[in-house]
Amino acid sequence: MRIRTLSTLECTKLLMTHRVGHLACAKDGQPYIVPFHYAYADNRLYAFSMLGKKIDWMRLNPLVSVQVDEHSTTRGWKSVVVDGRYEELPDRIGHKMQLDHAWSLLSKHADWWEPGAFKPIASSDAEHLPHVFFSIFVVEISGREASEN
Amino acid sequence: MRIRTLSTLECTKLLMTHRVGHLACAKDGQPYIVPFHYAYADNRLYAFSMLGKKIDWMRLNPLVSVQVDEHSTTRGWKSVVVDGRYEELPDRIGHKMQLDHAWSLLSKHADWWEPGAFKPIASSDAEHLPHVFFSIFVVEISGREASEN
Repeated sequence: MRIRTLSTLECTKLLMTHRVGHLACAKDGQPYIVPFHYAYADNRLYAFSMLGKKIDWMRLNPLVSVQVDEHSTTRGWKSVVVDGRYEELPDRIGHKMQLDHAWSLLSKHADWWEPGAFKPIASSDAEHLPHVFFSIFVVEISGREASEN
Repeated sequence: MRIRTLSTLECTKLLMTHRVGHLACAKDGQPYIVPFHYAYADNRLYAFSMLGKKIDWMRLNPLVSVQVDEHSTTRGWKSVVVDGRYEELPDRIGHKMQLDHAWSLLSKHADWWEPGAFKPIASSDAEHLPHVFFSIFVVEISGREASEN
């Protein structure tokens, strides 16, 4: 296996072409990983989530890690890791456009990890349900690829 | 989609039947996720790793999170999350048996994430290479399943 470092552009491209990754937050030194569904745009990963442990923790400490991987049909793989910063997008008129944009990106894809999200809802209703709309700002990004030659 | 909580036994079974998961460690509040290859035995996840960022961080702060997921052919999934504690297994005679046991479990499976591990080596040589052999002690475990009925 040959391992090489991915360029920033290659890392970004991988984030753009995928919709599911893993997100880790941390509280008092204890990390917590969950799979999450996102949409990448403008150096941010947008996502919706039900209220719960990960939102509670990210509100206390906005430093997060996101990892997305891609497997080839052979044994090859690519893996991208992001150091990110959680930013909650308040449910206010001023954020309506961002919320609609994220909802539009996210609703194109059927696989959700959050139970609440299994009930598709109209964009105009989204802000009235107990979902949190957030973005992960990409502070640093790096990646590696393994291939069989 | 119907979501239910997995029992501890179901969570453990999922860890036993898989070999690849995601591991997060944290330093100064910043989490860091990597995919990792493990073998489960006796309430521990055993793994080898090259020296590097994750080992450096886990040596400083042994609190980690491990997440393993399983996707069904439909939209269903299971996800298990472990709160764990990193324990390095020193490269000494007293640990030879544990090392051989872990190596035996791990070497049955071809997919490794770590570059160094793409060169299979004999168990007797393992302890002379710059790999770290460690286990994640399972402190807490929880899981959920989503199914389409």
